[in-house]
Amino acid sequence: MASNLEELYAKYEEFKAMGLQLNMARGKPCTEQVNLSNAMLDPALLGDFKAVDGTETRNYGCLDGIPEMKRIFAEMLGVSTDQIIVFGNASLNIMYDYISQCMVFGAGDKPWAAQGKIKFLCPVPGYDRHFAILEHFGIEMINIPMVEGGPDMDMVEDLVKDETVKGLICVPMYSNPGGVSFSEKTVERFAALKPAAKDFRVIWDNAYCVHHLSDDCDKFYNIFEYAAKYSNEDMFIEVTSTSKISFPGAGVSCMAASENNIAAVKKRMTIQTIGHDKINMLRHAAFFRNADGIADQMKKHAAIIKPKFDIVLEGLNKYFADDSEVKWTVPKGGYFISLDVKPGCARRTVQLCKEAGVVLTGAGAAFPYKKDPEDKNIRIAPTFPSCDELKTAVEILCLCAYIAALETE
Amino acid sequence: MASNLEELYAKYEEFKAMGLQLNMARGKPCTEQVNLSNAMLDPALLGDFKAVDGTETRNYGCLDGIPEMKRIFAEMLGVSTDQIIVFGNASLNIMYDYISQCMVFGAGDKPWAAQGKIKFLCPVPGYDRHFAILEHFGIEMINIPMVEGGPDMDMVEDLVKDETVKGLICVPMYSNPGGVSFSEKTVERFAALKPAAKDFRVIWDNAYCVHHLSDDCDKFYNIFEYAAKYSNEDMFIEVTSTSKISFPGAGVSCMAASENNIAAVKKRMTIQTIGHDKINMLRHAAFFRNADGIADQMKKHAAIIKPKFDIVLEGLNKYFADDSEVKWTVPKGGYFISLDVKPGCARRTVQLCKEAGVVLTGAGAAFPYKKDPEDKNIRIAPTFPSCDELKTAVEILCLCAYIAALETE
Repeated sequence: MASNLEELYAKYEEFKAMGLQLNMARGKPCTEQVNLSNAMLDPALLGDFKAVDGTETRNYGCLDGIPEMKRIFAEMLGVSTDQIIVFGNASLNIMYDYISQCMVFGAGDKPWAAQGKIKFLCPVPGYDRHFAILEHFGIEMINIPMVEGGPDMDMVEDLVKDETVKGLICVPMYSNPGGVSFSEKTVERFAALKPAAKDFRVIWDNAYCVHHLSDDCDKFYNIFEYAAKYSNEDMFIEVTSTSKISFPGAGVSCMAASENNIAAVKKRMTIQTIGHDKINMLRHAAFFRNADGIADQMKKHAAIIKPKFDIVLEGLNKYFADDSEVKWTVPKGGYFISLDVKPGCARRTVQLCKEAGVVLTGAGAAFPYKKDPEDKNIRIAPTFPSCDELKTAVEILCLCAYIAALETE
Repeated sequence: MASNLEELYAKYEEFKAMGLQLNMARGKPCTEQVNLSNAMLDPALLGDFKAVDGTETRNYGCLDGIPEMKRIFAEMLGVSTDQIIVFGNASLNIMYDYISQCMVFGAGDKPWAAQGKIKFLCPVPGYDRHFAILEHFGIEMINIPMVEGGPDMDMVEDLVKDETVKGLICVPMYSNPGGVSFSEKTVERFAALKPAAKDFRVIWDNAYCVHHLSDDCDKFYNIFEYAAKYSNEDMFIEVTSTSKISFPGAGVSCMAASENNIAAVKKRMTIQTIGHDKINMLRHAAFFRNADGIADQMKKHAAIIKPKFDIVLEGLNKYFADDSEVKWTVPKGGYFISLDVKPGCARRTVQLCKEAGVVLTGAGAAFPYKKDPEDKNIRIAPTFPSCDELKTAVEILCLCAYIAALETE
């Protein structure tokens, strides 16, 4: 690329004149991906509307989900069906409600809200909506840097000695936005944590646990298997959903947890709802049948989105392979690429992109309070645009990052 | 009926020997009713999956519901679409979340939870799940007797002078369990309330607002129309759902509220969810089309369930027409008949019924803390059993009420 700002601005104006409208802001499947599940809407799949245990899915009843949907989630996560509650369309809602419940009623003897200032550990960069929930409830967030194989566990082990630290929220596989999967060593250290707070909880958001981009994928480590070694099963609340497997917004979600936690959550649920949409559970269970059915579907997704990841990675390589200040992740799954531009340049890069018609997630979004301490991280969500759109969008992104860097010199 | 206990016990033993399993406990539509909506599951109704404003219902986005579903609810409740948020499958969940939000964040400057002991007014008999939510959050409940045309408004007007009284929860039309509809005078007095608490809220659960049993139905009074006269629109949170219109557990629900309240709820929702199931909204909107479509469906429901109400009423008339101690409501809509047996006899009647295979809602369920002060109220839910089953169930119920009364003499 030219190293002359004037030339770069000229090139930038050319892009701007194209009046583009490209969006790489959210981890949103493209239309081709949602088409993969259209056959699920065939009512023939619903048979006589009865679940395997005879539950009439069209009527009231069944608080924690129909058995066949529990079984699929149990297979996916390697837990028993007793450890599963099937919820509605959003695992985000499960997490919100769980944290709300901990604030008002507690995860032990005393509500979190009645314990003064409390804190959560937040591996960064992380998922903006996680941080929004914690901020909403006034929980102080402490950044934990992501290092090789997951969060800096030395720091985590040290900080949990503080009794006001009540939890940690993370995406253990193909993390949002880094695409990092926790190593076995990290998972083992999580399982072995001995926090000072008896009511400490790890929200283990396994949103992408089956979202491999190819057969060369990361390994799934079942947190409950490791936690059992340390009698720490009550410390983990795992969630996942079919949002990026079937239909975003019209899928089914679940919580996997220990017997104690499942009982506590069900107790609250009896007050909160009569049950979630069982017709949609039956539709999903009949379409996928089992965890293999899910895996097959994920291969179809990968065939659509892997080329999109490749386009972004090729673009970044083309312009920044030799730039030691610009780094990015090369994920084997999930929905994002995490790009670190030159420190101090993320906000400006995102702004330049926006003005040229390329919408990225807001700079800083992947950090608590939207404050990226080095103003360098940009989350790239490549799945929604077409390949052609992506090629242009990445050109513009690279140009803008380049301009922003030169502007600071 | 015989007035000799021995003879009655003998008759009772005969019923017991039949090994019946009849359930009149919950307001649950029967299979014939849920069949009315099967055609809604035809994917042809979903067209190209786009809402009228172009929203792709299979993907993320759209926090407050697609326009066509908002419009149907707006027509049903007589409000503007700006006053509607479409939620998931359960209005119970809307109410739980709303009260939770008031506890943690408040309905004004200060969270309810930070204001010491707070109270709610509860028209009785009322809906057990309402009371369960209030009890769950530690809100003290005060019984307000239902009189002609609604709750005792003299008492309500007096009690709202207490600033610790933060709200009232009610079913204004075809109340659960009495089937009472608030008169225009009552609605007007609600609209004109001047509570001491600035953060006072009336949860106006209009679950049965279109659930007429025949053309001879009660009149719908739009609370927001009356509240506007007194600039009291912010005081009311109205909810309803299609649970007993389409599929219980797989319908859609909504909140209707003032501009201020809608904005406050949406602000919380941006943290809590990415949006509710829009495919299900589209399915419902395409099937019903408008409020007239809903009204047509309700006529079909009425044709199925009106005979069931009549069977119960005929049974009660046959045995208790001349008994001044036994009273019941004759509702023009809704899902319940409220029966008052001889004071002190409800619990025993329900127990006798249960032992003879007829399950009723637990005695006292229609009162806060499950405490019926006179132990006389029994909620009858006639919709789920078949007509033949109902005939037997009512015979048994009457026999048991008779035995219970004689036992106390």
